Amino acid sequence: MDTMGRHVISELWGCNEEKLNDMKWLEKTFVDAALKAGAEIREVAFHKFAPQGVSGVVIISESHLTIHSFPEHGYASIDVYTCGERIDPNVAADYIADELEATVRENIEVPRGMGPVQVNQKKVVKAL
Amino acid sequence: MDTMGRHVISELWGCNEEKLNDMKWLEKTFVDAALKAGAEIREVAFHKFAPQGVSGVVIISESHLTIHSFPEHGYASIDVYTCGERIDPNVAADYIADELEATVRENIEVPRGMGPVQVNQKKVVKAL
Repeated sequence: MDTMGRHVISELWGCNEEKLNDMKWLEKTFVDAALKAGAEIREVAFHKFAPQGVSGVVIISESHLTIHSFPEHGYASIDVYTCGERIDPNVAADYIADELEATVRENIEVPRGMGPVQVNQKKVVKAL
Repeated sequence: MDTMGRHVISELWGCNEEKLNDMKWLEKTFVDAALKAGAEIREVAFHKFAPQGVSGVVIISESHLTIHSFPEHGYASIDVYTCGERIDPNVAADYIADELEATVRENIEVPRGMGPVQVNQKKVVKAL
């Protein structure tokens, strides 16, 4: 299997705070995001913290999706990492940002498995 | 909880190929790495692929550690992400690189949860 991968680091602010604290909703949203990108799901593990916040991961055949949510700050820290050229991680990252109703989104894309790392894209979107 | 986090992206080459394909060994090594850094473990999920390769995650109270291994290339793609100032993700990342016997290591550190992302460190080490 080729080592080439694309890793999208997505910083989401101004998200819906209730959704950020709803573990079951987040789990379903991340599974849906992986499927919409065309990924094959292997493992799903989510954890709810007290008094608030959720961490979760979906391991896919093509690598992983993760979230750490901070409802009290409207912030979610997202990673979508896909190996190979078949899948675009931005499809999943954009779906997650839309579903979380993020008003400020910053995405950077890091190539993985291709030698020296270069951060090659940067996108900041502020919703009106 | 503060959103501030440190995310170490670690690209390891020239690793021990047998270790890269040993799911149980990798799982124990990642749990040990998290504990050595002083993290609190919440969830552990690893998956072995056929014919080779392992993906795994350890969710910690302070965020996560992940691996995707490509034994046939001697390559492992590692992420260690820790929230807060108490834990240094490099402690875990360096332990993992040592245990995998990586001969070429590239680490970059990405600050998370602090507004616009800036990649602020880069370290390439080639073992002699």
